[in-house]
Amino acid sequence: MADTADLSGTSLVALDWGTSALRAFRMDTRGHVLETRHRPWGIMNLPPAINGTADPEPGAAFERALQDTCGDWLAATPGLPLLACGMVGSAQGWREAKYLPTPTSLDALARGLTLVERRDGPPLHIVPGLLQQGALPNVMRGEETQVLGVLAGLALPADAPVLIGLPGTHSKWVLARRGRIEQFHTFMTGEVFAALRGHTILGKTMQAAAAPDDDAFARGLEVARGSDAALGLLSHIFSTRTLGLTGALAPTAQADYLSGLLIGYEVASLSRVQGQTPTTPPTLVLCGEPDLCRRYAIALQTYGFAAPTIATQATAIGLWQIALAAGLVVAPAPSSSHPFTAGSLAA
Amino acid sequence: MADTADLSGTSLVALDWGTSALRAFRMDTRGHVLETRHRPWGIMNLPPAINGTADPEPGAAFERALQDTCGDWLAATPGLPLLACGMVGSAQGWREAKYLPTPTSLDALARGLTLVERRDGPPLHIVPGLLQQGALPNVMRGEETQVLGVLAGLALPADAPVLIGLPGTHSKWVLARRGRIEQFHTFMTGEVFAALRGHTILGKTMQAAAAPDDDAFARGLEVARGSDAALGLLSHIFSTRTLGLTGALAPTAQADYLSGLLIGYEVASLSRVQGQTPTTPPTLVLCGEPDLCRRYAIALQTYGFAAPTIATQATAIGLWQIALAAGLVVAPAPSSSHPFTAGSLAA
Repeated sequence: MADTADLSGTSLVALDWGTSALRAFRMDTRGHVLETRHRPWGIMNLPPAINGTADPEPGAAFERALQDTCGDWLAATPGLPLLACGMVGSAQGWREAKYLPTPTSLDALARGLTLVERRDGPPLHIVPGLLQQGALPNVMRGEETQVLGVLAGLALPADAPVLIGLPGTHSKWVLARRGRIEQFHTFMTGEVFAALRGHTILGKTMQAAAAPDDDAFARGLEVARGSDAALGLLSHIFSTRTLGLTGALAPTAQADYLSGLLIGYEVASLSRVQGQTPTTPPTLVLCGEPDLCRRYAIALQTYGFAAPTIATQATAIGLWQIALAAGLVVAPAPSSSHPFTAGSLAA
Repeated sequence: MADTADLSGTSLVALDWGTSALRAFRMDTRGHVLETRHRPWGIMNLPPAINGTADPEPGAAFERALQDTCGDWLAATPGLPLLACGMVGSAQGWREAKYLPTPTSLDALARGLTLVERRDGPPLHIVPGLLQQGALPNVMRGEETQVLGVLAGLALPADAPVLIGLPGTHSKWVLARRGRIEQFHTFMTGEVFAALRGHTILGKTMQAAAAPDDDAFARGLEVARGSDAALGLLSHIFSTRTLGLTGALAPTAQADYLSGLLIGYEVASLSRVQGQTPTTPPTLVLCGEPDLCRRYAIALQTYGFAAPTIATQATAIGLWQIALAAGLVVAPAPSSSHPFTAGSLAA
């Protein structure tokens, strides 16, 4: 469908391209987002060919998703740079982008872009993922860009540590300092919650609630940190059912109770790991879906952390930072105000 | 289908009736199992009415399952007592059987049978479940009968503590003494494993192995007890994927690695809980599916427990014990050998 809006002044098309969705940002010469589009074309859900025939080349379905999402933007401004982050750079994506080792800087990420040539337009650049080597390796794709976006919005002394939480399907906790990503952890909290609710006996007695049940959530948090903690997660989750059987937990409260249990275990682990490095408590920032950030903020404070700052628009800002560092766009004149110091962080 | 075997000498039909299957035992006057039948008629999978019409009464589908499984046994010996344990006594079962509070004895279980009248034959008796009250209540249905079966096969001083592990969808660990069930814990290990393998990203890269990969299993156990334990289960399970991504864990090894991680966490919890009560180490018995018992035996020894004994036929033996205590069957003459001292326990 043609967009009749004025498309002049666009300097970058930035893509947040994950497993289940594609978000496209049209950005002006100062990095402001002029327009955002959201499509269900995640890399595992690409649009089929219209006539149902097999694609002539592996990238055709990705190109189709791109055209459907922002073909008009690209047509209106020939040569517009295109930058993407996320699972589009995985082995199942459009092109596998390398993993950079941690610690990593903005400049290293900008130097490590993977180029995908396109038949009818400028190439797509894909941001690398991060690989943390160790006995138990750790990986991320997409979150590195969010972290850069969060860091760009903070006004902190250069060497102040920042702990950035990115709750979601797989929660990431990233320790950054001097603009570098130093270390990170992954917790499968969101995906485990969905699997327990959708595919175990715990979901059978749950009923949808009209609103989040913060009391049930807090009760789950308390169990996770309580004196019974020695029994562990595999035992504690069963109490979602037994408290229901004994009439002590309403069906509408059970999902939030289980959410509190799991997020409580995640934050308890984080608290232990943080306690092992006796340094200045880092500045704490959360970035993610609002209700999830709200839950994590409650959990963090229950465990004695300071109230976190909530960051917004981090992915678009991070993509702009990388585009700048890679020379895909030109920095605005120094006299103009920085577009991210206002509005990108909300208390 | 009519069974042409000699059905004389039957004194009890005992049923192990769970969520997904029904096992029926035809037992002689001394409690020996003469015949076992296995049907998929778990309480969530009862046989439909033949003509597809609605059932005239709630119990009709249960009666149909019973007739299909052992109608010929019941017809051959009018008045034959019928005893069942398991989820058939749950709110979703044929009739809800009460929960008895722990600690509980064999006699209390036998006195607490729930009676279901049947139109064309003797009533069905259902064994109560157990409820352990507390801040986090705990329940079992069916395992109490297995535990009684295990205890009947042990030759121990009356006050020697016995710790009985019943691995499965929901692992139960039961502390018994003087024939009484004193305390128990539940771990959702089996169901969590199935949900993670079937419904999260961890299963996507797994490939079936020709045989159990004990090295991968042991590696998972080591991670669960290793120095990284502070990060916890929600983080550690992600290593199933990252070790695969970095080429350090073959696709065919990933399921056994995850199994080792989860069982390791369960046994670690058990070890902590046991360590909190400084008494004589209990005699350790496992009862369940053979490969699962083998895995748990490895895990227990990794955590410093003694080698467990493996019990077999515990459910049938337990049902016989309850039938005896309830007077549904008459005890064999004292001169005859006890049917459970041989063959019921294997090292």
